[in-house]
Amino acid sequence: MSVDNREWYMAAYASQGVPTSEHLKLRTVSLPVAGDSIPEGHVAVEILWLSVDPYQRTRMTGYRDGLDMTPFDLGQVISTVGIGRIIESKDSKYKKGEIVLGFGFPVGEFCVIPSATITSTIDQMPQNITLPHYLSCFGVAGFAAWVAIEVIGEPKAGSNVFISAAAGGVGMVAGQLARLKGCRVIGSVGSDEKIKLLKDEFGYDDAFNYHKETDFDAALTKYFPNGIDLYLDNVGGKMLDAVLKHVNRHARIPLCGMISQYNKVSTERDSIKNLFNMIGKEVRMEGFMISTYFNRFPDFVKEMEGYLSQGKISFKHNIFNGIGSFLDALGSMFSSSNFGKVIIKVQ
Amino acid sequence: MSVDNREWYMAAYASQGVPTSEHLKLRTVSLPVAGDSIPEGHVAVEILWLSVDPYQRTRMTGYRDGLDMTPFDLGQVISTVGIGRIIESKDSKYKKGEIVLGFGFPVGEFCVIPSATITSTIDQMPQNITLPHYLSCFGVAGFAAWVAIEVIGEPKAGSNVFISAAAGGVGMVAGQLARLKGCRVIGSVGSDEKIKLLKDEFGYDDAFNYHKETDFDAALTKYFPNGIDLYLDNVGGKMLDAVLKHVNRHARIPLCGMISQYNKVSTERDSIKNLFNMIGKEVRMEGFMISTYFNRFPDFVKEMEGYLSQGKISFKHNIFNGIGSFLDALGSMFSSSNFGKVIIKVQ
Repeated sequence: MSVDNREWYMAAYASQGVPTSEHLKLRTVSLPVAGDSIPEGHVAVEILWLSVDPYQRTRMTGYRDGLDMTPFDLGQVISTVGIGRIIESKDSKYKKGEIVLGFGFPVGEFCVIPSATITSTIDQMPQNITLPHYLSCFGVAGFAAWVAIEVIGEPKAGSNVFISAAAGGVGMVAGQLARLKGCRVIGSVGSDEKIKLLKDEFGYDDAFNYHKETDFDAALTKYFPNGIDLYLDNVGGKMLDAVLKHVNRHARIPLCGMISQYNKVSTERDSIKNLFNMIGKEVRMEGFMISTYFNRFPDFVKEMEGYLSQGKISFKHNIFNGIGSFLDALGSMFSSSNFGKVIIKVQ
Repeated sequence: MSVDNREWYMAAYASQGVPTSEHLKLRTVSLPVAGDSIPEGHVAVEILWLSVDPYQRTRMTGYRDGLDMTPFDLGQVISTVGIGRIIESKDSKYKKGEIVLGFGFPVGEFCVIPSATITSTIDQMPQNITLPHYLSCFGVAGFAAWVAIEVIGEPKAGSNVFISAAAGGVGMVAGQLARLKGCRVIGSVGSDEKIKLLKDEFGYDDAFNYHKETDFDAALTKYFPNGIDLYLDNVGGKMLDAVLKHVNRHARIPLCGMISQYNKVSTERDSIKNLFNMIGKEVRMEGFMISTYFNRFPDFVKEMEGYLSQGKISFKHNIFNGIGSFLDALGSMFSSSNFGKVIIKVQ
């Protein structure tokens, strides 16, 4: 049995700007998903949910960029973290009908993959947890937030914490984790609606709209009268530079992403002028990739399940419907329109 | 008894450029150094040696700059680390004739200071160690090098280490410490003579003259075919930016100083464009001030005494004669002419 599988592939590199239908195209391919055409040790999967994350953009330039990830080849299917249902199995460890999570799913409707690439089986879900949570709080975004705040950030009760792109997938979790450690947490976001969301739903102490408060130095003076102890940088550029004027002694700056720079060629990136301040204030700035911290994943899951079951952390998913929505889903992250973790509900 | 004491003071702030005789002036004041005019708990000191360090420049702008140190007031005597002989004591712990080290000596010929500000007494000197060594290897420069390399830098045998301002007070020690850990060490310097010095006297594997190899990206490609694991930044600016294009996974960048930026007002400082690379390469950049690490000073002294007594570390002092030489001594650090630790032999 074959299915008509729609999948997104890299048609042309996007060296700058938000990728469009010129760069990313949808094609339909016939994919055998049953019988002898499935090799031993493989499974056929009907894809249910797909994670869309800013880092994917950095794989669409045709060269290794700041995140140092392998670029997609031209013609290659875009890949991501996903959840699917097994519809055929040539591995005795997996049964038809099982729900599985994989870190290398294609952005498509079906796939045939080596069973070794399956990360885990999702059988029984704890209270308050749904499938999309495995792509948000237990996925790339949630784990990145946890590593940034708890492993690198070392927040103490009373610390002044600033989080940029605070209503995005990483930011919303990070702020709540910092609040649970007793920190004062301020976020920067791209709309007034998001300020409300952060304060009402995620417990942020305050937030500001960087489109309105465009003098970041003045904004940080206003929101951080006692300086910044921990800055989770999701955006880079001008905001990072402004933060360096407001850091306290021994401030930590985990660099999670620099979304403001992803659509710019390297020569046009924003300049940073205030690194000198890192010396006197003894600031530690540290880039990280979650893959390095996978040995801590079980600690993270345990802690996060506890928070979720006790209702101490809440999530917002920005769900796009159908595989056709990928381009919009990707673009939403660069538009200030996005609230929460971007996920595609494929079927 | 009074002496005619010559001392340097802050006459006018130097917001940019190398400070000149317009900013720093020498004055002669009559200073009582004996009898009842010395208060209880104080000592009168004849100053013998004074340390001159790049960080002093950052206290001459009139405002708190990147190093976050208190600016000198107008009219205030410039202070530094020094060594002197006690010529009168109103504290039973100190005797006339003793040699003492202090971290807050004036740049002058005599002083009367609270005995509590004396850091240590220098009585018996281990083999190979002279008084100037207390201002170089056991002073600000040597300790900064040790903190940067051994505490923050975490060098491993075989690591590729890059050190800027490598023939300066910090750089010459840092490179030797890294070599003793089994690292491959390359330095950047401002003259060909210094390249020879680094290779012949300090055991550097290689070095380059940044005035000749002005394309830093190309130079680092040439000298670091396997990338950089540890960069001790003494200069900031364009060199730091270039390094960020050559960092290996988990590279460490201790920020010790940014001498290329000290003579520029903050708005004219060099821009850094390559911070994005810190994420994918998981680079840790960390500013530090040695005062934070004083609890490690005994460990440092013990290790350094061992190296010196075994002849494993050598030093070069750039000695200026007489208190009148302070302006030249200070300027030498910004001129590419300086070899080794700048020290004034006062008497």
